[in-house]
Amino acid sequence: MARSKVVFQPEGKRLEITVGRTLLEAAKETGLDIQSLCGGRGICGKCRIILRDGMNHISQVSDAERRSLSESEMKNGFRLACQAVIKDQRTIVVEVPMQSRVGQQRILLKGLEKQVKLMPSVRKLVINVKKPSLKDAKSDADRLLDTIKDQTVQELKIDYETLREIPHAVREGDWTVTVIAWMNRELVSIKPGEHLRDLYGFAVDIGTTKLAAYLVNLNTGAIAATVSMMNPQIPYGEDVISRISYIMKAENNLEELHDVIVAGVNSLLNEACEKVGIQTEEVYDLTVVGNTAMHHIFLGIPPNYVALSPYPAALQSSADVKARELGVQINSGAYIHVLPTIAGFVGADAVADALATEIYELEGINTLIDIGTNTEIILGNGNRLMACSCASGPAFEGAHIKHGMRAATGAIENVWIDPQTLEVGYKTIDDVKPSGLCGSGIVDTVAEMLKAKIVSLEGSFNSGLALSRIRRNEKTLEFVIAPKGETSTGNDIVITQSDIREVQLAKAAIYTGASILMKHMVVEPQDIQEIFIAGAFGNYVDPQSAKTIGMFPDVPLQNVRFVGNTAGSGARMALLSTDVRALAEEVAERIEYLELGVDPDFQKEFLKATYFPHKEVERFPNVMKSLRRN
Amino acid sequence: MARSKVVFQPEGKRLEITVGRTLLEAAKETGLDIQSLCGGRGICGKCRIILRDGMNHISQVSDAERRSLSESEMKNGFRLACQAVIKDQRTIVVEVPMQSRVGQQRILLKGLEKQVKLMPSVRKLVINVKKPSLKDAKSDADRLLDTIKDQTVQELKIDYETLREIPHAVREGDWTVTVIAWMNRELVSIKPGEHLRDLYGFAVDIGTTKLAAYLVNLNTGAIAATVSMMNPQIPYGEDVISRISYIMKAENNLEELHDVIVAGVNSLLNEACEKVGIQTEEVYDLTVVGNTAMHHIFLGIPPNYVALSPYPAALQSSADVKARELGVQINSGAYIHVLPTIAGFVGADAVADALATEIYELEGINTLIDIGTNTEIILGNGNRLMACSCASGPAFEGAHIKHGMRAATGAIENVWIDPQTLEVGYKTIDDVKPSGLCGSGIVDTVAEMLKAKIVSLEGSFNSGLALSRIRRNEKTLEFVIAPKGETSTGNDIVITQSDIREVQLAKAAIYTGASILMKHMVVEPQDIQEIFIAGAFGNYVDPQSAKTIGMFPDVPLQNVRFVGNTAGSGARMALLSTDVRALAEEVAERIEYLELGVDPDFQKEFLKATYFPHKEVERFPNVMKSLRRN
Repeated sequence: MARSKVVFQPEGKRLEITVGRTLLEAAKETGLDIQSLCGGRGICGKCRIILRDGMNHISQVSDAERRSLSESEMKNGFRLACQAVIKDQRTIVVEVPMQSRVGQQRILLKGLEKQVKLMPSVRKLVINVKKPSLKDAKSDADRLLDTIKDQTVQELKIDYETLREIPHAVREGDWTVTVIAWMNRELVSIKPGEHLRDLYGFAVDIGTTKLAAYLVNLNTGAIAATVSMMNPQIPYGEDVISRISYIMKAENNLEELHDVIVAGVNSLLNEACEKVGIQTEEVYDLTVVGNTAMHHIFLGIPPNYVALSPYPAALQSSADVKARELGVQINSGAYIHVLPTIAGFVGADAVADALATEIYELEGINTLIDIGTNTEIILGNGNRLMACSCASGPAFEGAHIKHGMRAATGAIENVWIDPQTLEVGYKTIDDVKPSGLCGSGIVDTVAEMLKAKIVSLEGSFNSGLALSRIRRNEKTLEFVIAPKGETSTGNDIVITQSDIREVQLAKAAIYTGASILMKHMVVEPQDIQEIFIAGAFGNYVDPQSAKTIGMFPDVPLQNVRFVGNTAGSGARMALLSTDVRALAEEVAERIEYLELGVDPDFQKEFLKATYFPHKEVERFPNVMKSLRRN
Repeated sequence: MARSKVVFQPEGKRLEITVGRTLLEAAKETGLDIQSLCGGRGICGKCRIILRDGMNHISQVSDAERRSLSESEMKNGFRLACQAVIKDQRTIVVEVPMQSRVGQQRILLKGLEKQVKLMPSVRKLVINVKKPSLKDAKSDADRLLDTIKDQTVQELKIDYETLREIPHAVREGDWTVTVIAWMNRELVSIKPGEHLRDLYGFAVDIGTTKLAAYLVNLNTGAIAATVSMMNPQIPYGEDVISRISYIMKAENNLEELHDVIVAGVNSLLNEACEKVGIQTEEVYDLTVVGNTAMHHIFLGIPPNYVALSPYPAALQSSADVKARELGVQINSGAYIHVLPTIAGFVGADAVADALATEIYELEGINTLIDIGTNTEIILGNGNRLMACSCASGPAFEGAHIKHGMRAATGAIENVWIDPQTLEVGYKTIDDVKPSGLCGSGIVDTVAEMLKAKIVSLEGSFNSGLALSRIRRNEKTLEFVIAPKGETSTGNDIVITQSDIREVQLAKAAIYTGASILMKHMVVEPQDIQEIFIAGAFGNYVDPQSAKTIGMFPDVPLQNVRFVGNTAGSGARMALLSTDVRALAEEVAERIEYLELGVDPDFQKEFLKATYFPHKEVERFPNVMKSLRRN
């Protein structure tokens, strides 16, 4: 097979790759994290690279590239890495600009937390086994089980690997051993002698974008270490659908993504254990939450059909799987508990959200909105709960937005526009020169433009305004937030008319989900006691701005509560108590899933919700009052 | 590390091996099966090889070799492979004579069999799963379980690997799947579509010397194929104690022996499936019996302490272990059922013997004697059962006997001596020239020598007889059975005074076990309804000869029943019925184990039993009558 050499700058990473593959694939092979939201389909336009040498040995510019790149960019050698196919055996030099990289991102680790009565799944027992004699030569294993039964009145199974360790362990410990019992059902570990150190567990929240995990002392319930990382699956596609597309491409791809996520969890586990000074084998339990696709990939279950109508999950019930079957490096006999899911697009993370907010038992009606590329909404109270999933898209994570980026250093996170002078102010994460707009910055920008009447309630630029910041680019109108003199990229940072359209679609999806749930439950905005906003984006967005653009119903701001990473909190609660696990199963069963696409009003509702704040302005009396004030 | 080249003749197998290792180790590395009863300790004298070249590069003759080899043998280059250590980097040429090889052996496959009502642990279900829709998007797994529950009123767990296959399987089969349920508890396999082929199971009897296995149609109960092989662990030591010694030598040795036995079972499985024309994945159940050490090694459990007082097993209860955890290549989700053991030296094979003979429920008192290197005896009836284990040694398998060999081609299996002329007649297995004596030949020889008064009741040669066949070798008296002109080895085949002593010890061990059990149960020979003789040796020995030398109590010959390989029969019964498994557990629990060493009469009884047939001749009235007749 003919092979070509590719060099990635500025790192100078190089590799040999067969002719016929794309530069995106080449970058992935060297370990370079290039953004790719659409999974290499040429749609998202995020995987921009610059050809520095060997451009004649790359396929011609495709239609997809022509849609994403400006004339001048193309002239300067910009290409989409996913479209650029290596044609022959020459050296190709490629520059990967900062905007195309997956950077260090701010990850939200804390969430609302409910106190839980400690009732972990694992229990330590120190057992003094009676020595055998010629008159009592019962076997080691039966002798051990009998002693445990005498002490605890329990019949236990023995894990196979543990069984193999019994003969040496009882003798090394001079007939005293320390065992770990799981769920009062199975002996999952044995060590010679008396071990009095505390037991640990690990709670993991697998987000599409981030992993957050907590090492928890199971004897006290205290968090011993908190660790996080970007989801190492990002190079395979930034959203769930892209990763599922990747999995569908070849038989081994599921195994590959599964291995990548397990390696990620193991690396978090090692980091957390190192911080606390324990061995990973001393961790005897692990709980996992995540959206349905992440949950399936972690378990190695094909998530393919989650992406196809009628979008069923492969597994809804919770599952207990031996750590060694999954390759997770906690104690080899220990079990991993994966919380239940609700539907193909309402996962175990939503169940965890419900647990942490107690929405399942509150008397008043509450709404939980976990905002992400996919937004899950739960509405209800102790009597009835409904949930739906909204395809809100990645706009609030900075994707599909011309200068959008994720909430990393240099992202504009707050924007204000003086309604008189129309001057723009902004603040960036870590107060460095701006390089783009993150979700909260985008929402702020749109809300401020609305208030300043730069954008109409229909979402159109007010082209009548004689304002130097408003201008027409090759295709559309755009508004300059930060002029190139101030930015780290050397380009203006703008928001375009099509960016505004993306925001309209995204916020309409969320609002429509909430409103259709409310219709089914016969709930009015004034009936809602609290709106819980969960997820990283939710925690940083300005609630007033979010309400102004009509992202959620018009309730008093004091009734909106940012609850943070409740998915992680729920995972931790399940780690601490088997009662919580039973409760999770029950809650997941109780939550009625509503497929929005089936509702006859969906299309109409959605179109009306694309207006700012809504076509039926009477639904947003407070927002309209404030907009009119300006 | 300095390495030497060793060539084994006549095959011409060659290898390079580090200086300092023995020729036995070198042979094992090339896969040559050299007999080694003592595990390389220089005691058994079975691993004779002839140095053909490079003798100066091998360690000097050891004291152990001087004890085993005659002057003339040493002059001709004979050495014990286990004692011959490679000294420096030269080529060494070694001949492995036929007598030192582990030959093709006759393996007894059939045993008494009891009809069992079919109730296998695995059941096939063809399930028509309701397709999901937008209004009913329940998960694939829950949908499948619900349908099964509707059809069978059962709550099933799902095997982890099976769970991963559900999404593709239900769609490939257009929502019809065939599943396998184990013990009405767990779904262990799923296949798309409707599969109506019969289910198969595999029953394995792991003997110290041989493996016998049966592929069984679980729908009909019929044996579809019978396969057998020598236990591939033989090169590591021919008896249980030698193998345990080997395991104790280094940490990885248990794993090595475990892998070797699993590979053996897999090779039998492949052979049997090929005969029947099915895939090994179509085998959904496997039962295993074996003595406690074999049972432990198969499971990878250290058998070390079985060999040390008070000789406890590591595990007595039965165990169900996933095939994939053990590396056995039946269906990966299937379970392997290992039958319970009774004590360190009374294993799952004895439990299987009890099941096949129904000794556990018979009204009259019966004795089961499973003769091997270790002989297990069970005595009792439906009310009470006792068992013991006798260290009968390998004499009846041809070991510790000067010209002993196992029951393979060329072994003398029957011997008769004319009491008048004292002429000797014999018959060999496969009627070829004799190369040694197997167990039944040894027993015949001794019984015939007793009847001919060549040997006294105390076991001493009658040196007063002027008989050319009786002569004195360097050390002791010996009796020529086959002169060198008739043999395949070119040497006389003899039985020596020390061989007779070995037989005395072996038969005394068995008789003492039976008599002490009888004492504990207050049973006289006339109370015994039947003596069941199990095991390969038992099946070929002449019962009159065995009784003549006093191997078992003096009961009428019609009450002695050779039941063959009842261990294999019991394994097959357990394969066919979960009721039999429950029964096995109950029987194993019920059988009271008696440690012979603890009985105060043991030494005295044993010494008296070394006489032919017994020092207290009144215990053998019928044998004595017949001896006196001659």
